[in-house]
Amino acid sequence: MQIRTWFGVFELTGDRIDSVELVPKDTDLITGLLLEEPLLMRGKVACTDLRDLAVEYGFVDSGDEYDRLLHELNIELVKKQMALAVTPDRQVIAAVEALDDINETTNILSERLKEWYMLNHGETRLRGVELANHILNTEYACGGQESISSFASSLIGLYETRSSIEKSLKDNMEALAPNLTNIAGYILGARLLSIAGSLEKLASMPSSTVQVLGANNALFKHLKGKAPSPKHGVIFRHPFINSAPKKLRGKIARAVASKISIAVRYDCYSGQLRKEFEGELEAKVTGIRKKNFPKPGKSRY
Amino acid sequence: MQIRTWFGVFELTGDRIDSVELVPKDTDLITGLLLEEPLLMRGKVACTDLRDLAVEYGFVDSGDEYDRLLHELNIELVKKQMALAVTPDRQVIAAVEALDDINETTNILSERLKEWYMLNHGETRLRGVELANHILNTEYACGGQESISSFASSLIGLYETRSSIEKSLKDNMEALAPNLTNIAGYILGARLLSIAGSLEKLASMPSSTVQVLGANNALFKHLKGKAPSPKHGVIFRHPFINSAPKKLRGKIARAVASKISIAVRYDCYSGQLRKEFEGELEAKVTGIRKKNFPKPGKSRY
Repeated sequence: MQIRTWFGVFELTGDRIDSVELVPKDTDLITGLLLEEPLLMRGKVACTDLRDLAVEYGFVDSGDEYDRLLHELNIELVKKQMALAVTPDRQVIAAVEALDDINETTNILSERLKEWYMLNHGETRLRGVELANHILNTEYACGGQESISSFASSLIGLYETRSSIEKSLKDNMEALAPNLTNIAGYILGARLLSIAGSLEKLASMPSSTVQVLGANNALFKHLKGKAPSPKHGVIFRHPFINSAPKKLRGKIARAVASKISIAVRYDCYSGQLRKEFEGELEAKVTGIRKKNFPKPGKSRY
Repeated sequence: MQIRTWFGVFELTGDRIDSVELVPKDTDLITGLLLEEPLLMRGKVACTDLRDLAVEYGFVDSGDEYDRLLHELNIELVKKQMALAVTPDRQVIAAVEALDDINETTNILSERLKEWYMLNHGETRLRGVELANHILNTEYACGGQESISSFASSLIGLYETRSSIEKSLKDNMEALAPNLTNIAGYILGARLLSIAGSLEKLASMPSSTVQVLGANNALFKHLKGKAPSPKHGVIFRHPFINSAPKKLRGKIARAVASKISIAVRYDCYSGQLRKEFEGELEAKVTGIRKKNFPKPGKSRY
């Protein structure tokens, strides 16, 4: 008979141990094995406690070491299991947060590149990736210019990374939350997920919360009675809202948030794409615009 | 006879214009020509005003266009002349500012890379360039991992750019300000130049100002009477100061600032390296340390 324990494999005949094949004392390796198959971690083999066997067969020097090792192992194991339990929404959230950081850093670096370039070459209308490409395509013979070229190519690398992340974010969002993506777009959708923390959390939020997600400062100011309630948080980036006349933005933001709420619930609990949501929202927004700005010449009543 | 004007070359016999070779109507090109040789920009050729000649020979359609073009040209010219007047200290300042931006962005991005990596692989002790290299060296077969690899290689690109800038900064600083570099190191020296604005400005500052350069907030707080005077600004990064016992830092900062001041003045007005400054400062600092912490067993008096 064979008994597979966490520190080695025992071959038994009845209650007699014939041989033991010990595992290397490497927590990384052992947790890897434990994730693949369940190994005996406590109990007895041939009427002897595992702890004593480990000492007897020389896997550890003492019972204390055994306890310490087992403790470490359990922590490692939980960490690895957590990592494996990474849900697609957490992947999407990680990607959109990385995207935000890249946007911030490319802004900083492209401003700097422009200033640096202008110091040597005077005014330019180029910026960002265009300026970086221009610098790389121009001959730089004189000293000290390797630095600015290297700077420019780093910046181009970041822009390429941004495209790569955006592409995979788009694919993942379409798979994870097709309705949300359809209504809000993949970037805004991912950003909402990132603020809410997970797809399930976003789905459980009332649409009035979705409407002001990301407007924390304005919301707290309002709750302290110092300001009117915010009309929109990050959903302001939705084209329906930011292209609307200022006095309609609140109303349209409510309509968009409400449709996003429904879309997210479908994504979370059914997963089916309901293409009609898009048309419904469009009709609703058109309605709001018409009602508030009736065409000239027509009476409102 | 040949008369070279800003919009073309006139061939004359006496007062008669034989031929004109017009320049293409491109301000960029014309300013380039003007930087190479002085061309006639106002006055008369063959008793006719340049403005009228330009219309007559079809370089411009009207006198108005001529005025507008000449105006643009002058602005461009001044910009280009300014760019050419870039002094080495402005190059150094641009480089150290770029370095600061790179440090900031690599910090942001390496934190993000670590978080992203840990989401999929659990805890890691690696960080920064090590983690990025580890990610690139590990096989990533599963989807969505191209993004994180691309992110990692962008980060490595930024670290390489940093090394390149640091290298050229070191060379330039040694050429521009050998004494400052000798006393303060090239990074701290460049940072002082960057805050002061130029080598000449730094050289004209009293050493008490050099001592608190970069400690603006603390200084203004002090000037409003709300805090003690700051003991040091960016010169705190000098190893003599940040390795000193806290109660001696003010005294040592004063000594370092005073030596930096003298060093910068030599750089600005003589340019000769005075190697002995380094030893003098060291002796001074050792003196301060000894006087305030006499060796145990020895009486102070």
